[in-house]
Amino acid sequence: MFDAFATILDWLGIAVFATTGALVASRKQMDIFGFVLLGTVTGIGGGTIRDTLLGILPVFWVTNPAYLVVCVVVSSTTFFFAHVPQSRYRLLLWFDAIGLAVFAVTGAETALATGVDPIVAVGMGVVTATFGGILRDLLGGESPVVLRREIYVTAALAGAALFVGMSTAGTPREIALTSGVVSAAAIRFAAIRWNWSLPRYRPRPGRGMDELDP
Amino acid sequence: MFDAFATILDWLGIAVFATTGALVASRKQMDIFGFVLLGTVTGIGGGTIRDTLLGILPVFWVTNPAYLVVCVVVSSTTFFFAHVPQSRYRLLLWFDAIGLAVFAVTGAETALATGVDPIVAVGMGVVTATFGGILRDLLGGESPVVLRREIYVTAALAGAALFVGMSTAGTPREIALTSGVVSAAAIRFAAIRWNWSLPRYRPRPGRGMDELDP
Amino acid sequence: MFDAFATILDWLGIAVFATTGALVASRKQMDIFGFVLLGTVTGIGGGTIRDTLLGILPVFWVTNPAYLVVCVVVSSTTFFFAHVPQSRYRLLLWFDAIGLAVFAVTGAETALATGVDPIVAVGMGVVTATFGGILRDLLGGESPVVLRREIYVTAALAGAALFVGMSTAGTPREIALTSGVVSAAAIRFAAIRWNWSLPRYRPRPGRGMDELDP
Repeated sequence: MFDAFATILDWLGIAVFATTGALVASRKQMDIFGFVLLGTVTGIGGGTIRDTLLGILPVFWVTNPAYLVVCVVVSSTTFFFAHVPQSRYRLLLWFDAIGLAVFAVTGAETALATGVDPIVAVGMGVVTATFGGILRDLLGGESPVVLRREIYVTAALAGAALFVGMSTAGTPREIALTSGVVSAAAIRFAAIRWNWSLPRYRPRPGRGMDELDP
Repeated sequence: MFDAFATILDWLGIAVFATTGALVASRKQMDIFGFVLLGTVTGIGGGTIRDTLLGILPVFWVTNPAYLVVCVVVSSTTFFFAHVPQSRYRLLLWFDAIGLAVFAVTGAETALATGVDPIVAVGMGVVTATFGGILRDLLGGESPVVLRREIYVTAALAGAALFVGMSTAGTPREIALTSGVVSAAAIRFAAIRWNWSLPRYRPRPGRGMDELDP
Repeated sequence: MFDAFATILDWLGIAVFATTGALVASRKQMDIFGFVLLGTVTGIGGGTIRDTLLGILPVFWVTNPAYLVVCVVVSSTTFFFAHVPQSRYRLLLWFDAIGLAVFAVTGAETALATGVDPIVAVGMGVVTATFGGILRDLLGGESPVVLRREIYVTAALAGAALFVGMSTAGTPREIALTSGVVSAAAIRFAAIRWNWSLPRYRPRPGRGMDELDP
């Protein structure tokens, strides 16, 4: 039961992230194989970096090529249907939010399973959640979503920390997984919907020129 | 015989990619060690990522430093002779095409040799072929060549798929290697020469504003 | 004695690089967790890539989470005090110089300890020293410091080469470490202070148009 649930989450995260990669490809008017490259890198990028840092090699999609296939299918489908949604950019943001929430938790879970310190597991959740999107934006020449004004990294961190905290406290894994994903997604959804943001760093008055230094 | 041939291809790919890295450095008017850094990262970047994902660690140039030496020599030579070609950008595109074709096939070959699924081998060929150039363009602050209009990823994919198909069908390796490299190079050369491109994604009329969303 | 010294250098490098990451976050007016992400990636990024390439997995901060903690503390402290220095960009440059010098040497040291060829050790020093900053600038959407006009890569290369040369010649490690760090830092400090640069590549007269090719 649990394994099935975690596996479904994993596939969901990969599929939605692959879609966001393909949507960036659509914004850049790439051809279908450009969609496939960008979709695949986004779908499996975060987990690939996670596996590498943990020393789980070869990485998951080398061992199980079905992950590659799902990315290829999702990306090329997006090529034909990207014009359907009202706003592709808005869809990209919402799907990115789902992927962020799912990977923050499954990333932390994978790390915990290797026996690392809880703080490392939280960090690994954040890495898994954010680096797929970072790679997507770098390769697509977009401004990184991680720099956006509303709460982003914070949502991943909250979900990963809640999951790791509940897990180490002995909560059943389905409940810990669900709580982590739902809370991260809720925070990020609310942030997109109502432009929530934490206090940002602001230079003091009269220091603005400093910004122009380089 | 075969090993010699594959090795020559490998060195060729590294040398031409190192040259493209150095040419980007020349466009940015870097000093000689900037040339060496950018040339080396481009020359060995794709293979480094391939080795890491496959778990072949330490990566190939740690085990065999001659690869580093060839990158350093090629990059610093380019520093002194980059002014010779009529158009450095055009030379960069042609050399990038050769590197793309060679690495698509040798990358897939390395992966196959570790016993992975053919689809993973094709993917690894594409990764090896494209990520050296992606790193070069990211570090050099250039618009990624992978986003260019003409056929690019497709050429790598075609070469890698042809090679993997022929290999798994039992074709002698020299023939499979040659067929893969030649077909990938021919496709990419033709794409550069005649601006070949696949149909690109185009937003439907009246949806253009959507693009400006962020 | 030696180990304590090398460890102190390591922590120093991580702390100053984490500060530079947080300073880039301040320039982008990110929130506190944006500071933490960018500071942490910058602090441990170079060493993470080094460990991966050498096959020292899981990477150092997975094994020893105290490195993560120091990055988090330094980055969030910077969030509250980034307005204090007269020029944040100048502070970023100086701290980056210290990190560059320290990591060029400790990176080479870590590589030497795994028994690699001296030329690989020098390369690994340069990688460790430069890639934290490269990741910082890529994620922060800044123009990469590695492309700056004054001597940069050269300083890392000089420090790493001096350290590796002295080490293989049998110099006591404290002396080799100190010489490498001090020389790299001195070169980079002087380069910042007096705008030192090596001769840069310059296109010949009448070739300028070529630059505009793409």
